[in-house]
Amino acid sequence: MLSYDQLVFMPSSAAADRGEQMSALAGILHEMKTEPGLKSLLDEILELDQEQPELDQDALRLVALERKAFVENERIPADLAAKAAGLSTSAYSDWVDAKGKQDFGAFAPTLQECFDTAMALADAKKGNDDNKTLYDQMLDEFEVGMGQERIDSIFREVKSALVPLISDVLASPSKPSDKPLSGQFDIEKQQELSEKLVTSIGYDKDQGRIDVSVHPFSSSMSAKDVRITSRFREDEWYQGLAGTIHEGGHAIYEQNLIPSALSIDSALSMGTHESQSLFWERHIGLSKAFWRFAHPYLPELDASFEQYTPEEIYGAVNRVSNSFIRVEADELTYPLHVILRYNIEKDVISGSLPVKDIATRWNADMKVLLDVDVTSDDLGVLQDVHWSGLAFGYFPTYLLGAIAASQLFHYCQQDIPDIEAKIESGDFQPIKDWLKNKVHKHGRRYASLDSMLEDQLGEPLNPKYFIDYLTNKYTDLYQLS
Amino acid sequence: MLSYDQLVFMPSSAAADRGEQMSALAGILHEMKTEPGLKSLLDEILELDQEQPELDQDALRLVALERKAFVENERIPADLAAKAAGLSTSAYSDWVDAKGKQDFGAFAPTLQECFDTAMALADAKKGNDDNKTLYDQMLDEFEVGMGQERIDSIFREVKSALVPLISDVLASPSKPSDKPLSGQFDIEKQQELSEKLVTSIGYDKDQGRIDVSVHPFSSSMSAKDVRITSRFREDEWYQGLAGTIHEGGHAIYEQNLIPSALSIDSALSMGTHESQSLFWERHIGLSKAFWRFAHPYLPELDASFEQYTPEEIYGAVNRVSNSFIRVEADELTYPLHVILRYNIEKDVISGSLPVKDIATRWNADMKVLLDVDVTSDDLGVLQDVHWSGLAFGYFPTYLLGAIAASQLFHYCQQDIPDIEAKIESGDFQPIKDWLKNKVHKHGRRYASLDSMLEDQLGEPLNPKYFIDYLTNKYTDLYQLS
Repeated sequence: MLSYDQLVFMPSSAAADRGEQMSALAGILHEMKTEPGLKSLLDEILELDQEQPELDQDALRLVALERKAFVENERIPADLAAKAAGLSTSAYSDWVDAKGKQDFGAFAPTLQECFDTAMALADAKKGNDDNKTLYDQMLDEFEVGMGQERIDSIFREVKSALVPLISDVLASPSKPSDKPLSGQFDIEKQQELSEKLVTSIGYDKDQGRIDVSVHPFSSSMSAKDVRITSRFREDEWYQGLAGTIHEGGHAIYEQNLIPSALSIDSALSMGTHESQSLFWERHIGLSKAFWRFAHPYLPELDASFEQYTPEEIYGAVNRVSNSFIRVEADELTYPLHVILRYNIEKDVISGSLPVKDIATRWNADMKVLLDVDVTSDDLGVLQDVHWSGLAFGYFPTYLLGAIAASQLFHYCQQDIPDIEAKIESGDFQPIKDWLKNKVHKHGRRYASLDSMLEDQLGEPLNPKYFIDYLTNKYTDLYQLS
Repeated sequence: MLSYDQLVFMPSSAAADRGEQMSALAGILHEMKTEPGLKSLLDEILELDQEQPELDQDALRLVALERKAFVENERIPADLAAKAAGLSTSAYSDWVDAKGKQDFGAFAPTLQECFDTAMALADAKKGNDDNKTLYDQMLDEFEVGMGQERIDSIFREVKSALVPLISDVLASPSKPSDKPLSGQFDIEKQQELSEKLVTSIGYDKDQGRIDVSVHPFSSSMSAKDVRITSRFREDEWYQGLAGTIHEGGHAIYEQNLIPSALSIDSALSMGTHESQSLFWERHIGLSKAFWRFAHPYLPELDASFEQYTPEEIYGAVNRVSNSFIRVEADELTYPLHVILRYNIEKDVISGSLPVKDIATRWNADMKVLLDVDVTSDDLGVLQDVHWSGLAFGYFPTYLLGAIAASQLFHYCQQDIPDIEAKIESGDFQPIKDWLKNKVHKHGRRYASLDSMLEDQLGEPLNPKYFIDYLTNKYTDLYQLS
């Protein structure tokens, strides 16, 4: 609540006070989470149940989740926790400064400290588990149960398929026109359109609200109050809408968890969360069927839309370009932005890449992967906030989510054969119900995204569907042979 | 923050969840506030300082304040605290129901329980202090250091002066016209005007924000983030503006306390708070000089305002009528609404008035004091929420605040001889500075409103200035002889 208010409503004058309020509350929470009595109670439950089984699976899983969280928290020395908290605040300022100066060198010493501290945290958390690498421990934080080896093999397959495909797409002489994207669009009308479409797909605004913030996000105050934010610009209308649908996808997940205050009824992982936002943003919002449904609403934004067919809008919103910036990238080039970051952080943590050399490596990889010449650090290595917040192992979840979204959509199409007609007529309820059954209602009952997909769809995460989706779509759209 | 969000932004679907969140947080706070180690630390400080004085006055006062709060909290048995918390939630629903049915009888058993529980709380808090009555203990909660005897004598004087004055005013054949008040006024334009005027008088919107809620209130998240809310109706423009200025007065107080997180730098009492909101709402916002300043802005609301002089606006906003409802009452009749409630709660607590007879007493007193025939309980005894929240001793602070506001304005006029010219030209800074020096910056350094006024103005709270202000103003406006 404090964080949401800060990002949406708070006057900036109160930033320092709010920081103190949040750190006071974090201190109280940490104390409660590591209260020694809690652990003995959890152990007692597990022991009693071993002697005489009484707990059902859900209860056992809940106790196990709480015990794991407790043990990991408990293993962090208080001074290390305090250091990490302080560092992520000061590193944020250092990052902002260095980005302003377009100078990675100015940020490198701080980034070194961020890596060192995150590694110390991971080392503490993993305890005596010698089978786990530090990076595995970090990955587990954001994508429970998914290790580096598994991700390596998935990402390798994606990269091999996409690098040549992107190259063909960018070289194609028949590009869809992006003319329908730009113009002058009233912000209030964009908000109205976004609200109409995000509630159409199934975001329940009566159990939440939609606000505006600098960076779009979603935030769950409780199962009955899941909020999303978006942002709009006057010269382009699609980014604001896409952001709203993306956050709407996150919120639909949160709104359809079983409503309880128990950790078992929260989202499984960051990748699972991203699979939900991307399912709606891409497999619905970037589809031809969706634009046949949504096309009639566009003239409310601007009368000039009457000149375009749904297919022309579909082409414009799916236009591919090789850009510097991850958050502005299209679905085809986005995966390579993630793989680049994943490889870099993995190599720093394994010791094979010195922090000071990250910028050089970044720029070289951008050239190889996307044929882009990075001209300054703010457009390259300094573009993302994540590392300054000690969030190593976070980036890969974006791509895992994209892959899972494609796989889910593939099976959803099998279960709902007339899905295109449904999308075209604006009937999203069966799709939302399908996702609720396959993903939402399970909360954290599975050990990983892999095991949920295996149980629900019959196979673990498989990049095939993602690669097929992109290959078919862009071969058609760019008329590749 | 949770409460502000609930009143301003939260979807109503989340009410039950929010209730649980707030009560969880309240439980944690209570535990921290009554943590035994805290008391021994406070005692130790006081003992050490007695042996070898090291603390300055502020520090001593802070320790004393914290110790008093600790001891009072500590004296409340846990089951009584839980009962009171649960009761104020259920009593609120009972009150809403009974009000809907216009039936005091339906609420009387709950109200009895509210009185009993509040008396048990006061009895626990006052400990062995036999000089204090239960009602004194309750008053101390809202108006520190002000007992029943003192308030009795002040209110008696006010009542004797106002009853005949109101009767004369209501009988006067020359009433100012209230025609300028009504019409059709765009809500957004009202908001803009309110914002313009409340920032003119000195509310710093860059260190706060203005929102809309069902009941206007102000809320301080920190010294750098003090928010106000207001509400507007389309058929009358003055209530919304007055509410904004009123809450702005509260907020100016909070914004000009010494910025710290210490209890010594918070507001002295509810009456002191109300003196600040009413100072701005009445002595500034209802003055002729203010309407000479604000009159040019009114045509922005509606072009028809061009036909009125500042004096006609002044007359309209100061129009007196004897109404049923306290929150809609003008400044002249308002005091009697407070005195009526004060006498009733005092008599119930002393045992001389049974709860079941409150409605009869209410209606009889309304007839005597304001010559009003109460036609149904929802317009009478059931109009206010306070008692369902166990807030006995709260009502008198409204009138103490009004009296203090008049006294402060009297001395402010003496110190700023050209105050009228300043108001007329929109130069409110010297007035705000004066209030900061006399009231705001002292926080809780004084033992009571009385002792602050005595030290700062040379005399304790004196109803003379309030009576003189009302007598002079309304004798003139209603052309009484």
